[in-house]
Amino acid sequence: MPQTVVALDCMGGDYAPQEIVKGAVAAAQENKNILVKLVGKEDLILEELSKYEYPADALEIVNATEVIDMAEPPAVAIREKTDSSLVKCQYMVKHGEADAMVSAGSTGANLVGGHVIIGRLKGVGRPPLAPLIPTINGVALLIDCGANVDARPAHLLQFAKMGSVYMENIMGIKNPRVGLVNIGSEEEKGNALTKETFPLLQEAEDINFIGNIEARDIPAGAADVVVCDAFVGNVILKTYEGVADALMTKVKGGLKSSLKSKIGGLLIKKSLKETLKGFQIEEYGGAPLLGLKGLLVKTHGNSKAVEIKNSILQCASFKEMDLNTKFMEKLNLK
Amino acid sequence: MPQTVVALDCMGGDYAPQEIVKGAVAAAQENKNILVKLVGKEDLILEELSKYEYPADALEIVNATEVIDMAEPPAVAIREKTDSSLVKCQYMVKHGEADAMVSAGSTGANLVGGHVIIGRLKGVGRPPLAPLIPTINGVALLIDCGANVDARPAHLLQFAKMGSVYMENIMGIKNPRVGLVNIGSEEEKGNALTKETFPLLQEAEDINFIGNIEARDIPAGAADVVVCDAFVGNVILKTYEGVADALMTKVKGGLKSSLKSKIGGLLIKKSLKETLKGFQIEEYGGAPLLGLKGLLVKTHGNSKAVEIKNSILQCASFKEMDLNTKFMEKLNLK
Repeated sequence: MPQTVVALDCMGGDYAPQEIVKGAVAAAQENKNILVKLVGKEDLILEELSKYEYPADALEIVNATEVIDMAEPPAVAIREKTDSSLVKCQYMVKHGEADAMVSAGSTGANLVGGHVIIGRLKGVGRPPLAPLIPTINGVALLIDCGANVDARPAHLLQFAKMGSVYMENIMGIKNPRVGLVNIGSEEEKGNALTKETFPLLQEAEDINFIGNIEARDIPAGAADVVVCDAFVGNVILKTYEGVADALMTKVKGGLKSSLKSKIGGLLIKKSLKETLKGFQIEEYGGAPLLGLKGLLVKTHGNSKAVEIKNSILQCASFKEMDLNTKFMEKLNLK
Repeated sequence: MPQTVVALDCMGGDYAPQEIVKGAVAAAQENKNILVKLVGKEDLILEELSKYEYPADALEIVNATEVIDMAEPPAVAIREKTDSSLVKCQYMVKHGEADAMVSAGSTGANLVGGHVIIGRLKGVGRPPLAPLIPTINGVALLIDCGANVDARPAHLLQFAKMGSVYMENIMGIKNPRVGLVNIGSEEEKGNALTKETFPLLQEAEDINFIGNIEARDIPAGAADVVVCDAFVGNVILKTYEGVADALMTKVKGGLKSSLKSKIGGLLIKKSLKETLKGFQIEEYGGAPLLGLKGLLVKTHGNSKAVEIKNSILQCASFKEMDLNTKFMEKLNLK
């Protein structure tokens, strides 16, 4: 098995560098076939590393003197902060010094740099950002949630194919069901984009297209690969988060409404917490930006060590399963 | 105060005619200034009415021999089933025999017939369907959730204005906050539609535009009037329903996971139920189709008496506040 080299942006995210470095150590302990290059301010990284025991040859520091803020305009940051941890990771992937990168930093800088610095696989129209989202009995891949607004039908066909390859190989779901997000299940429903995309998906023989799905069917687990343009994907992802948060605040408030419910609340606290955890998007690791020459995994800004670890392990699976070659085959590219 | 005449489709919905007629009786008992015309199969309606006491001059039966199925193609149903309860209600509004109508029947037939039979206020580009949705501390108007996919910026400006009039006059919210659904809060974010709509909303001096909002801010109560095209509105509405359902199934399952949580579950049952009720979209009555010559309130297919009653009362508020005149003023139409 070839070793996977992952460039890790140690300066991005709310809990950098502490939780980022902690996640790298955890990943190195779990998979011996990974080399993590810790990119960021050397002194800070060394300080964090001094807290842990780890296989010495699994971690390597690459000094980067700059940091990209969440609020910086992405295109400017990418161009000007070439010695930032984020941009340096992207150049490492571009130059083959890493197979993949993981960053909890600015979404915009990650997406823009992913396209501009790492670059697309030849023939991929738009690289989609594809997070796993929780469903009642598992997870689904929501593809696309990135910055590709105003996508075209041919892009959505590529999303469906790349999503199918991902779910089959990384998540082990045989013949994953592909659904097109629409406002009704009939073929003739929808906007211009979905009406033109439907026949393309139906004609594609190498995916398991189950037709249109409504947004309410997604949490119910109706499809494994949920295809939509990035605007709609973003709305779905954020409504998920918002409704779950609001409902939980309400439930917690309700539990304080009487003495009886207060006592009941104490008894159910643990099981409620576990249930909610299973429905939090953060639990499922970072979102891969697919269709690049390499892999970029964008994790949440508030990522803790467990999400960083899972994202690094995801990079290893990606390399081990040779996913980019499988994408090229599925998309009939060479 | 002028009397409000409401045409009620007694044959539409899962619980027709029982719950529909029951809702009419409840509305008549609550507001003495309403005349409800019960449209549908006379014998069935009479049978239901015989169960109740009600003011004799508040309810009137209009016989209609046909019924439109949920699955019928809307345009065909509207054209051919002219003696159906749904279409008859629409003609009654068109001909001034009713100020408004309420139907739990086919959404498609209601929307198509609303446009084609009742007709738009002169100058309204596309009548939006605008349900109230729950937020952490109240409700918001989600405008548009109808069938106007591929809307244009000028339509969204009209939605913002009509929505503001509605929330101010029907819900009593002074200077309602208008938010544009987008994938980020900065002005330059979004797809072609939102980028072109943003300056139109910003220049409109007679609305309280607070800028772009992300979908996650909607349940948190960030805006009173949530403006989007129907495709996005539909996705938001259905993700709301789907996530709330899934989460509740999960929570209920979690409560059965141990003896301790089972006991706790029994203690919190009542408060949990009330909390959830407050977050169910069905609780807020039907969705008005705005910008018509008259008013059409579309209620859920699974409407029970309380939703029918609330929808009929909503029609009375609409007439009493003379909302169509206020719409025309706000839209600078005459």
